[in-house]
Amino acid sequence: MNRQELVAQIREKQSFLCVGLDTDLEKIPQHLLEEEDPVFAFNKAIIDATKDYCVAYKPNIAFYECLGPKGWESLKKTIDYIPENIFVIADAKRGDIGNTSSYYAKTFFEYLDCDAVTVAPYMGEDSVTPFQEFENKWVILLALTSNKGALDFQFMTDVNGEELYKKILKKSAKWGNSGNLMYVVGATRAEGIGEVRKLVPNHFFLVPGVGAQGGSLEDVANYGWNSDCGLLVNASRSVLYASNGADFAEKAAEEARSLQQQMQQILIEKGF
Amino acid sequence: MNRQELVAQIREKQSFLCVGLDTDLEKIPQHLLEEEDPVFAFNKAIIDATKDYCVAYKPNIAFYECLGPKGWESLKKTIDYIPENIFVIADAKRGDIGNTSSYYAKTFFEYLDCDAVTVAPYMGEDSVTPFQEFENKWVILLALTSNKGALDFQFMTDVNGEELYKKILKKSAKWGNSGNLMYVVGATRAEGIGEVRKLVPNHFFLVPGVGAQGGSLEDVANYGWNSDCGLLVNASRSVLYASNGADFAEKAAEEARSLQQQMQQILIEKGF
Repeated sequence: MNRQELVAQIREKQSFLCVGLDTDLEKIPQHLLEEEDPVFAFNKAIIDATKDYCVAYKPNIAFYECLGPKGWESLKKTIDYIPENIFVIADAKRGDIGNTSSYYAKTFFEYLDCDAVTVAPYMGEDSVTPFQEFENKWVILLALTSNKGALDFQFMTDVNGEELYKKILKKSAKWGNSGNLMYVVGATRAEGIGEVRKLVPNHFFLVPGVGAQGGSLEDVANYGWNSDCGLLVNASRSVLYASNGADFAEKAAEEARSLQQQMQQILIEKGF
Repeated sequence: MNRQELVAQIREKQSFLCVGLDTDLEKIPQHLLEEEDPVFAFNKAIIDATKDYCVAYKPNIAFYECLGPKGWESLKKTIDYIPENIFVIADAKRGDIGNTSSYYAKTFFEYLDCDAVTVAPYMGEDSVTPFQEFENKWVILLALTSNKGALDFQFMTDVNGEELYKKILKKSAKWGNSGNLMYVVGATRAEGIGEVRKLVPNHFFLVPGVGAQGGSLEDVANYGWNSDCGLLVNASRSVLYASNGADFAEKAAEEARSLQQQMQQILIEKGF
């Protein structure tokens, strides 16, 4: 999916919600364990229930990988089931020497046919650019993450007081453009979102950390907005596990609709 | 495998060679494509041919992942086939928020039962420590990588002239110990190996970049040696693809034996 199509979806659905598919056999309703493929059965019900309220899904690869080949089958079926007009992000945090990154890119862009993959920046340019050689596919590079450990290295400053995450933004912005590169910017660091926005005014941000991790949607919109919206705000656990009973899909729909309505309010205020 | 057992293997085999299993369907001898599982058939032959000359195998997960569920089956069969006394490293470069990292850890330490997994440091402590909660399992954290992109961020200096990779070494050394934490230090940065050795005198290093990437084994030993050897030097392509004919296993054995003999010379010189 290209940028124009993504922005059109945000406008049409009045939503910039991404639903994270962190599907965990220990947390899904226990009656689903009788299904032949419980992970896919759960995801299918969640997608049916939430697809009108979100513009993106983000399967978290760790949750599939830990189930072995069966997990990869559930993942593939899930991605194939997601409607064409919804953006699919493989949350994989990959990144390796160029030769290896190009194999990871094949996995996510050819085999799974996702629209985007999250990538870690530590190994630099040749670990990132192999993901950018696919038309209408996106790299979502880690900039400021939502977890506590973000404080360990991301805010390290050089002699001029410039933080590591800003260096990463400045350098990486030259490797791609706002049509094939986004950034992960955690909702738990609202002021950081503003700092990132100053450096990359046109790029989209994937914003985790609203919901279970405590970030505020209002703050994210205040600090991160750009003229194309420029935001994909992710919610995972708060939607997926809104109920662990037979009504899980209904409750997930309610939670996704509630987020969509808050987003619509913001979009209206911004005149979008 | 614990540290004592690893060191005993190095002493016994007079080798600190790690063979990287970057198995690529486009590069393996074409007659193997007729096998039911060409990737496993190739790996099995390589393991049979090289197991007396190496102390570790390092499957590069990207090469298996890109084949979908079948790739994960080949990977699992390969790891199960590796003899018990050989250290197995999943080269995966994973790392995510704590909740997610613990699922990646389950994949590599429970499902695949590897001894170690490579982890990227950008997300900090809580992205790394979930991998350290498994007995006799190891994190191998990226410090100085062998690729060109290593120069983009890893050498960024703070106001005191201290580089990012040194900060990562100092902080991360407190998250684990020399019995559950190693570092990736590229052979293409020989003097860097010496700098890393000063900061973490006791830890093992996984050293890629000898062979196809151009690093020198002598330099690695000169700069990286410690009293327990402290080195696992990886060769992938130079061993795996020493020949692409029917004699591929024989040529791989020759190449691995040649590296083992160079290593034995070093071990003798060091009085090990």
